[in-house]
Amino acid sequence: MKNYFVAKSRRLRSTPYTSRIENQGVTAYSVYNHMLLPAAFGSLEDSYYHLKEHVQVWDVAGERQVEISGKDSGKLVQLMTCRDLSKSNVGRCYYCPIIDDKAGLINDPVILKLGEDRWWVSIADSDVILFAKGLAIGNNFDVNIFEPNVDILAVQGPKSFKLMENIFGKKITQMKFFSFDYFEFAGAKHLIARSGWSKQGGYEIYVENTESGLVLYDKLFEAGKEFNVKPGCPNLIERIESALLSYGNDMDNNDNPLECGLDKYVNLDTEVNFLGKEKLKEVRKKGITRKLMGVMIEAKEINVSKSINLTNDKNSKIGELRSGVYSPHFKKVIGIAMLDKPYCEISQTFKISINGDVFEGKVCDLPFI
Amino acid sequence: MKNYFVAKSRRLRSTPYTSRIENQGVTAYSVYNHMLLPAAFGSLEDSYYHLKEHVQVWDVAGERQVEISGKDSGKLVQLMTCRDLSKSNVGRCYYCPIIDDKAGLINDPVILKLGEDRWWVSIADSDVILFAKGLAIGNNFDVNIFEPNVDILAVQGPKSFKLMENIFGKKITQMKFFSFDYFEFAGAKHLIARSGWSKQGGYEIYVENTESGLVLYDKLFEAGKEFNVKPGCPNLIERIESALLSYGNDMDNNDNPLECGLDKYVNLDTEVNFLGKEKLKEVRKKGITRKLMGVMIEAKEINVSKSINLTNDKNSKIGELRSGVYSPHFKKVIGIAMLDKPYCEISQTFKISINGDVFEGKVCDLPFI
Repeated sequence: MKNYFVAKSRRLRSTPYTSRIENQGVTAYSVYNHMLLPAAFGSLEDSYYHLKEHVQVWDVAGERQVEISGKDSGKLVQLMTCRDLSKSNVGRCYYCPIIDDKAGLINDPVILKLGEDRWWVSIADSDVILFAKGLAIGNNFDVNIFEPNVDILAVQGPKSFKLMENIFGKKITQMKFFSFDYFEFAGAKHLIARSGWSKQGGYEIYVENTESGLVLYDKLFEAGKEFNVKPGCPNLIERIESALLSYGNDMDNNDNPLECGLDKYVNLDTEVNFLGKEKLKEVRKKGITRKLMGVMIEAKEINVSKSINLTNDKNSKIGELRSGVYSPHFKKVIGIAMLDKPYCEISQTFKISINGDVFEGKVCDLPFI
Repeated sequence: MKNYFVAKSRRLRSTPYTSRIENQGVTAYSVYNHMLLPAAFGSLEDSYYHLKEHVQVWDVAGERQVEISGKDSGKLVQLMTCRDLSKSNVGRCYYCPIIDDKAGLINDPVILKLGEDRWWVSIADSDVILFAKGLAIGNNFDVNIFEPNVDILAVQGPKSFKLMENIFGKKITQMKFFSFDYFEFAGAKHLIARSGWSKQGGYEIYVENTESGLVLYDKLFEAGKEFNVKPGCPNLIERIESALLSYGNDMDNNDNPLECGLDKYVNLDTEVNFLGKEKLKEVRKKGITRKLMGVMIEAKEINVSKSINLTNDKNSKIGELRSGVYSPHFKKVIGIAMLDKPYCEISQTFKISINGDVFEGKVCDLPFI
């Protein structure tokens, strides 16, 4: 596959850490919420093995926050998500599908409850702030909505716990998964959550004080030497093996959360009021007509830059591959695909054409590992 | 400046023409509305000279449409823009700043009035569809909002008129600037507007029928041979010389349209109801505190990937450069900058540091040419 350069401009925003990761050897970017998101530091496989064994620091500032505060903030946040937040607690993170009135997915953020009337919606790649503003204006809600100056540093990998303990003390290792708390460093208080876009364990540091964040970034590499720390980024192999869904890749506004296997976060039998609730009840009643599934393909290589059709023996389309990568663990290509209803069964076989060659594949459960 | 690759994925959507432009030598991409936008075919200067003399075909599918139709569509469209659309006509294009309730810019689309109750908002890089949906839901408007399957091909340059006449007949040369009409080609009807993101003249073809669009793409190159046609894209040099403002680069949600010199499109003394109207009246009354201006800098090279401070003799910040490029016409760097009020006067001098060297510059009017 030929490579193309990214044309930088102010519109594709740099992060406070861009110059650092460029000195550290970033080789490719994606663009996420109008911001540069590192996508590779050389070999994807080397980074994958390193992430699973050691610890990495990621510049994931592209994961922007939408801050919603004020008297009606809880009402607005609940209106946007099909997950019941009525029993949510301050200090906790909640994975929440955001859907529109037709139940189409708009984003799948992690929502942090900062206070009874203050929330951070930590977004995937779409302008949720515009949806929130539109809803707030139209409903005449008493809220304040803005993008705060927050740039996330993720510390991921099995040795992240030791590294973070080294800097922030024992207390940070006692934090539960998807909890957050505040920790002092270099004259600033940082919100740190036990979370992150890998299944290797770790933290996300929501840096508000950029100056302190830059000192912290360097400190993570200095203190991390003994843990073999490296700069990194969300890893395509690791995230597909772990079935961490990617909005825009695996699902988009044409899909509803039930089709994407997010049933756990769809709370239809509750009192809470959210957009698309009636529509989702209809979907549940009729049953979904397609579903996001794992697939394994007997191939050694793939580059998925758009949907690739999956066909049956009669050459009819039965689904489409949306993400895929060669997995060193399975020694074949694995991917995430939307399969039509009769075909979204485990062990269903299919054919796929990759660069003109036809390969055999099989449907499987998510996650792979 | 070191170059970085773009990491392709389904989330950075390809266009129907991506494989064609890759065969034709595209070298760099930007990302625009979650879609690949070609940013260079080799040398920027060569493309600049070619665009000013001949004709180019641009894959600008990233300029997505938000279709808004239904009984309340006119009300919703007007609510979003500070330009008075009460006397707008079907068959015309309107450049319209979209602002929020605090008068912060959200986008600066061209809006096409397709019918009395049907509009295409042809957007710059932000998810206007989410703002429109939020407002519609909150206000309980009777509208239908979606992103239609429309991919724009722009034909730009002084020879675009001859080339388009060759394919679509004399009638297309009689169309007025910012008008549109429908033209048949290869079994499909195409909406074609006399518009485009250059000042060299030309058309934008709003392709709905992809199959016909692909035939048309090839036809444009075949028929264009005699006019020295080449593939191209919005050209950084040409667009800055012509002062075509770029949302996200030159202006963003922290700026209001009066600060950006868009006074012509801010109709405060009208009956129409739009967001931010009272706020803009306040701004007008108090006067703006900063303004978007042109600048010329005595340098031979610049790469603007984020705001660069402009300082006065006392080393105080007086503004920031947001876009800039070396202009072969002026034989110096030209750019677009936001200047604080006392300093946004023509011939105001400033200093700017580029890669560690300090250069002198001067404020000037827009456009440059």
